[in-house]
Amino acid sequence: MNPDPYRVRPDRAVQLSDWNTDDHGGLSKQEGEALLPGLQTRLADLQERLYAEGQQALLIVLQARDAGGKDGTVKKVIGAFNPNGVQISNFKVPSEEERAHDFLWRVHARAPRLGMIGVFNRSQYEDILVTRVHGLIDKQLAERRLQHIRAFESLLTDSGTRIVKFYLHISREEQKERLQARLDDPSKHWKFNPGDLEERAHWDDYTAAYEDALTTSTAAAPWYVIPADRKWFRNLLVSQILVNTLEEMNPQYPVAPFDAATLKIE
Amino acid sequence: MNPDPYRVRPDRAVQLSDWNTDDHGGLSKQEGEALLPGLQTRLADLQERLYAEGQQALLIVLQARDAGGKDGTVKKVIGAFNPNGVQISNFKVPSEEERAHDFLWRVHARAPRLGMIGVFNRSQYEDILVTRVHGLIDKQLAERRLQHIRAFESLLTDSGTRIVKFYLHISREEQKERLQARLDDPSKHWKFNPGDLEERAHWDDYTAAYEDALTTSTAAAPWYVIPADRKWFRNLLVSQILVNTLEEMNPQYPVAPFDAATLKIE
Repeated sequence: MNPDPYRVRPDRAVQLSDWNTDDHGGLSKQEGEALLPGLQTRLADLQERLYAEGQQALLIVLQARDAGGKDGTVKKVIGAFNPNGVQISNFKVPSEEERAHDFLWRVHARAPRLGMIGVFNRSQYEDILVTRVHGLIDKQLAERRLQHIRAFESLLTDSGTRIVKFYLHISREEQKERLQARLDDPSKHWKFNPGDLEERAHWDDYTAAYEDALTTSTAAAPWYVIPADRKWFRNLLVSQILVNTLEEMNPQYPVAPFDAATLKIE
Repeated sequence: MNPDPYRVRPDRAVQLSDWNTDDHGGLSKQEGEALLPGLQTRLADLQERLYAEGQQALLIVLQARDAGGKDGTVKKVIGAFNPNGVQISNFKVPSEEERAHDFLWRVHARAPRLGMIGVFNRSQYEDILVTRVHGLIDKQLAERRLQHIRAFESLLTDSGTRIVKFYLHISREEQKERLQARLDDPSKHWKFNPGDLEERAHWDDYTAAYEDALTTSTAAAPWYVIPADRKWFRNLLVSQILVNTLEEMNPQYPVAPFDAATLKIE
């Protein structure tokens, strides 16, 4: 599968409507599910090399609307990695101390160390999304923040960290179905936040805010728009992009600083 | 399988030689491997409840000699959990800043928040193991540290965190085979540290130091000695103990703070 059509071209205006939320890459669900295990094995192998090498890091940014599938992606895609080499950060409403710093302070603290895979479940982009939609910041400040995000990401990519950013793209109808499913099942009530309904009412404002966020796509820190109405396709496409990204990074087992032939274990 | 024979009784002198490193619980490898998937499903289900409930935390402490299987346990047992709900901490040689604080400072900072499962891959116990074996601290200071560890663990258990501690118990011969296997395979050289050979020479000193550590077993923070020569049995027994521990904690999906029947998704 070629992920290129899902990559956001740098320095160009973005229209989310250019991507279908129910795209399935011409595959059936059965075909897609049959392809996933091979990618998961490949992910685990590449991660072990990344960890052993210890010279590069991978930062995965997950953004989506409510019920867009961030948690499911962590479970099904990130779950393929050895948990020892993964650091997951969930950025929630900032604490008082976090609000008393610049908006990238808490994010920078969670940058993955070399050898690691960092996952941002929500990220620095929240600070130009919910804040913008609710009028807590104006367009000018949002623009400034996007510049700060670009500078921050280039600091990381200049320092050995590859960044790959996913927007999980669901339709308004699919969101409705997923939220309703949470309401219908008491064991899923804990996932339901009545505030999500208010956010849903701002659907078009979020679309515009995401389209601004996606303009930060660069070669070293690309955005991908992931059709996410079908969970199996979302998992497959994200896995494929991560395999390709890690293959480009091409991590290598390090050369041992000892001569194995001369070591004797008593 | 009944894990009770592997639990260290509180307030009693411990002899590691009371447990066989190659114990297999009377099961064949085939039988053991057939039992694991059911436990993994149960672990994932219990973890989701723990996360949803958000009122309790579980802290898993992993200790072992070099090549004892800590990383393999993280991969095979902890890998059954949703990574979103797991925080893994690898405690390595302390940094300059860490050394400038008390020995529990960096450990406390990594205590899991309620709803989460924390994994300590090495832990506070390192500070009475390697330090003691190499004479960096004397017996009296080791005793003081054990008291501090008891107080620290009771602080956590009084505050909603259940602690379960595993010593992965391998034989000297099994360690030799595993270290040799790392030397024989260039793609495993990165796991081999020539310093491990020096530690191996202190085998009996480590046994004594671990026996001291195991005296901190309590009802709320028990130690288990896990026969670990057989990786499949190690994975099975640790999984079973975690299932039993989480079942005792009995996390419940929270009651929703809204009436689902009155909510309408537009």
